[in-house]
Amino acid sequence: MDGAGREARATISPAAAACVARHVPGRSLERDFYVDESLFAADVARIHHRHWLFVGYSFEVANPGDYLTYSVAGAEIVVVRGQDGAIRAFHNVCRHRGSKVCLSEHGHGSVLACPYHKWTYRLDGSLMFDTKKEFGVDRSELGLRPVKLVDAGGLLFFSLAENPPDFGDAAATIARKMKPHAIHRAKIAHEIDYVVKANWKVVFQNNRECYHCTPNHKEYNTAAYDVMRDNAVVDPTLQPAMDAVIEQANARFAELGLDTGDASSNMTGRNWRCHRTPVMEGFLTQSMDGKLVSSLMGDIKEPDSGTLRTTVFPNFWQHTNCDFAAAARLTPIGPGETHVRGYWLVDARAVEGKDYTLERLLPIWDITNKQDWKICADQQAGVSSPGYVPGPYSTLRERNVAHFDDWYIGELRG
Amino acid sequence: MDGAGREARATISPAAAACVARHVPGRSLERDFYVDESLFAADVARIHHRHWLFVGYSFEVANPGDYLTYSVAGAEIVVVRGQDGAIRAFHNVCRHRGSKVCLSEHGHGSVLACPYHKWTYRLDGSLMFDTKKEFGVDRSELGLRPVKLVDAGGLLFFSLAENPPDFGDAAATIARKMKPHAIHRAKIAHEIDYVVKANWKVVFQNNRECYHCTPNHKEYNTAAYDVMRDNAVVDPTLQPAMDAVIEQANARFAELGLDTGDASSNMTGRNWRCHRTPVMEGFLTQSMDGKLVSSLMGDIKEPDSGTLRTTVFPNFWQHTNCDFAAAARLTPIGPGETHVRGYWLVDARAVEGKDYTLERLLPIWDITNKQDWKICADQQAGVSSPGYVPGPYSTLRERNVAHFDDWYIGELRG
Amino acid sequence: MDGAGREARATISPAAAACVARHVPGRSLERDFYVDESLFAADVARIHHRHWLFVGYSFEVANPGDYLTYSVAGAEIVVVRGQDGAIRAFHNVCRHRGSKVCLSEHGHGSVLACPYHKWTYRLDGSLMFDTKKEFGVDRSELGLRPVKLVDAGGLLFFSLAENPPDFGDAAATIARKMKPHAIHRAKIAHEIDYVVKANWKVVFQNNRECYHCTPNHKEYNTAAYDVMRDNAVVDPTLQPAMDAVIEQANARFAELGLDTGDASSNMTGRNWRCHRTPVMEGFLTQSMDGKLVSSLMGDIKEPDSGTLRTTVFPNFWQHTNCDFAAAARLTPIGPGETHVRGYWLVDARAVEGKDYTLERLLPIWDITNKQDWKICADQQAGVSSPGYVPGPYSTLRERNVAHFDDWYIGELRG
Repeated sequence: MDGAGREARATISPAAAACVARHVPGRSLERDFYVDESLFAADVARIHHRHWLFVGYSFEVANPGDYLTYSVAGAEIVVVRGQDGAIRAFHNVCRHRGSKVCLSEHGHGSVLACPYHKWTYRLDGSLMFDTKKEFGVDRSELGLRPVKLVDAGGLLFFSLAENPPDFGDAAATIARKMKPHAIHRAKIAHEIDYVVKANWKVVFQNNRECYHCTPNHKEYNTAAYDVMRDNAVVDPTLQPAMDAVIEQANARFAELGLDTGDASSNMTGRNWRCHRTPVMEGFLTQSMDGKLVSSLMGDIKEPDSGTLRTTVFPNFWQHTNCDFAAAARLTPIGPGETHVRGYWLVDARAVEGKDYTLERLLPIWDITNKQDWKICADQQAGVSSPGYVPGPYSTLRERNVAHFDDWYIGELRG
Repeated sequence: MDGAGREARATISPAAAACVARHVPGRSLERDFYVDESLFAADVARIHHRHWLFVGYSFEVANPGDYLTYSVAGAEIVVVRGQDGAIRAFHNVCRHRGSKVCLSEHGHGSVLACPYHKWTYRLDGSLMFDTKKEFGVDRSELGLRPVKLVDAGGLLFFSLAENPPDFGDAAATIARKMKPHAIHRAKIAHEIDYVVKANWKVVFQNNRECYHCTPNHKEYNTAAYDVMRDNAVVDPTLQPAMDAVIEQANARFAELGLDTGDASSNMTGRNWRCHRTPVMEGFLTQSMDGKLVSSLMGDIKEPDSGTLRTTVFPNFWQHTNCDFAAAARLTPIGPGETHVRGYWLVDARAVEGKDYTLERLLPIWDITNKQDWKICADQQAGVSSPGYVPGPYSTLRERNVAHFDDWYIGELRG
Repeated sequence: MDGAGREARATISPAAAACVARHVPGRSLERDFYVDESLFAADVARIHHRHWLFVGYSFEVANPGDYLTYSVAGAEIVVVRGQDGAIRAFHNVCRHRGSKVCLSEHGHGSVLACPYHKWTYRLDGSLMFDTKKEFGVDRSELGLRPVKLVDAGGLLFFSLAENPPDFGDAAATIARKMKPHAIHRAKIAHEIDYVVKANWKVVFQNNRECYHCTPNHKEYNTAAYDVMRDNAVVDPTLQPAMDAVIEQANARFAELGLDTGDASSNMTGRNWRCHRTPVMEGFLTQSMDGKLVSSLMGDIKEPDSGTLRTTVFPNFWQHTNCDFAAAARLTPIGPGETHVRGYWLVDARAVEGKDYTLERLLPIWDITNKQDWKICADQQAGVSSPGYVPGPYSTLRERNVAHFDDWYIGELRG
């Protein structure tokens, strides 16, 4: 799938390669994957500075000149909408002495001007003055360096690789399934920045199973079928009831003109998925009480549309309901620390205080997030111990964690 | 002494081994021993993750299900009393995904349950449910990993090594000499957590001599004979007076049915000691004014029992008086930082406000500790300088520091 | 110039040497020079622990026994005036166990006594007691280790090298040109400690050009001719006006018995300069409004003496006016952090509140400094990105930056 990309892959340290070679599939990753600086460098080189990362939403750069900056493991990028309406991404680094060009996270300008010596670039990245005489280099060689960007139905993903892994299927599927929710004309009702004291893989593994939900997520469990699904996997006598739920949900999805789905968390592609799952019977959306928390999004005409679950390794997931979406963008800070931005989206026309309040919108995911970050920090502390040895995954309830590890190990091995 | 342990020793970096090879006995250690990350890693591997470390007191886990956790250089352990009354230690790491199992420093439970997926262990470490079918591994292979633990008269020591250095003589001697003070039925009147801005060896070297006492420890010097002892070593005309003190003290110890002692700080074994020394004439205990600061401990029937000094490299010392004990547990945080927990023990039956007050109990050791931590931080700053060259130890007053270094170098060389 | 010094040069890591070998003159330095720990170690070894560094002013140790301490990349030094009036520098490290000897930044003592065991040294560094018997080493081998120090007209520079690069011309020129300002009998009116979130080279490169002044230094530009000079370089039709300014300024300097100068920022020697430049027409000094901000310094008899600009790679610059001097001492903290002490000097006889106020004295340089530190931090963030590629320097306005880089690369290559 990413043949071209492989050539561009950074070499990794012998110590990191040895860890990768020792990995036993079906067992949790060994200690160094979570604590070692050379493995963190390998993760950055092979994963974060190569794969497609979520950066933000197209509505965040709604007008020509609107920009958005993002920094991941030292890489600075700027996403900007041009005069032609196209959204482009560039390294946010001046071609003169390397200063950051755009200093704020969100901003607007008719041009992009570096604050240091006012080297000024058009919104398409081209440098606006002649350099040949004074600098000995033609201006055409001194435009902002482009970064590959894809707009998947309003979700913006970028890759820092020259030849990135293929993302065509993922982007097309996400765009198609997101369409009724019209993310490109939503708005961010609220953002929360969390710092999780755990490796980014601990955070993503936590996201890939609901085996931990029963002891930890009282609130989430009232709204989602994940626990029932897992129970049915372990105890086949419960499967018919789960099947009935799916059948009923799919009938509802068909009625609304939406794609069918299931309750699984399996990945669609190797490192992404996008499919609809039911919410709990009697619930119109993922909320504390099952009632709507905002007006309907986009072209959704009736409530009770299930949840469109979208996951893209290594930094993104989103639960998109009829009335709101909750998303998470993961940014590794170091081996034992990850920044997570939580997003709460509502329809652009929704008015705070009238159509929604943060008191009703935030809890179910903010509570669940915080429960997970606590779990993750405790796991990070344990796996950091020399007394930790990789343990076996459940062949029933942790297949998706094993899948994540397999993908990850494959990327480091490749 | 630790033949079996040697096989299990971790390899150390070539840079660390070169420093060890360059060491000149009788001179202070060179700079890298105090600041270099690879030498810190060597210390952890060869010393802290191998030797016997003090973790706490048996009375801290008085009842079945009581537990105590401790973390040293990333290693997480839990010490727990079983239903059978035995105290055991385990890696505090779940055998499933590696989360910490017990989250608080002190706690109680009829079982030990991991918060992540509720893998639950009996107090003897065995896993309580079948894993073969879902996880492909027999439950008998998935118990909490045991850690070696010794109860030396109420003082609990553990070793993370498979084949630890021998500790039999040390444990037996400590248990026998501590017996009259009945540490196993004492209580902690107060704890203070200090962070010392110095390498753990700087802290221990400081503890191994009283050459620094005259200029630095006005309060301690009023209660202890260390300075007189050192003066007698330097000036033999003072020795008879020192001998007379010892003779008188030993008569007193015999009267109380206690072992004889001397004023020295020499080690009994290679890396431990436990012997009684006198306190200053007219002093009943180590206190600011020489008066008792609590009711008598354990089976001690009369005041003025001297001080039982116990030292175990690399992380523990305790001064045990007739009425209270003051101890220190050292935990390395990094090359330039050490956590020290100071403990003040009194008899379990002593009542605060009636039998003792913290205002009278704490000062002599809290003041002395803080004076030492300041000295240590200033030494750390100096030895970190490229302008530092190892200097000569006093052949009279710093033999015990040289002994500590010899032991340490031997462990890194071994 | 520093043949003898070269032998003493520390070896640098292969990674650092490879970066040095890849450097393209006339282009900015590549990323690793600003962020990599092994290159930071190379900088310290080859530059900061070898070259002449500014430490302070002779008037800061005005009387015998006055001392001044300074720490650069772990190296601790003490500068002290002896009973004979001579100023000496030593490693501030006790020859016994390596403690810091002098603990405060400024102090006074008739001797230098280590706080740990009271090893006591005379102000000439010699140890005051016999060590042969107790320590087995003659006291003559245990004096404080000397550090080379030069007093250049009241500015004190030291080198940690055994065979430092030659500094004779620099010291002599600085002493001669500073003479009318009588820095040795000035005083520090104020100091500000800044922490700049940038590599020390970013800070020094910023100091070596005024191409950034137009967009960033509104206040400074009103007082200094730097922008006009650069404009004349780019547009030769402006040169005659600039020449006229210099001609007029030199006439004024001659009238005052001062050396002639020009508006350039070129270096006099390879890594230092000291020459007079005009201030803006109508300005008597570098101030917000052009009026004096203190009484005249030293032997200066009339205002309007231009500015004597002194620069010494890698850690010092000073603008010396008729009434005050503003200086900066750079101390690297890590690859991405530099401590800068800003100094404001006035004549020793000037009285605060009467002859000067801080409200008038500080702004022009404090404002300019803060503008620069902001620029530097933004450049540091940009050059840290893997998307950064070295860009071309202006052949007209950044020759002095290229010169700094050439010097720096030469020192790392040598």
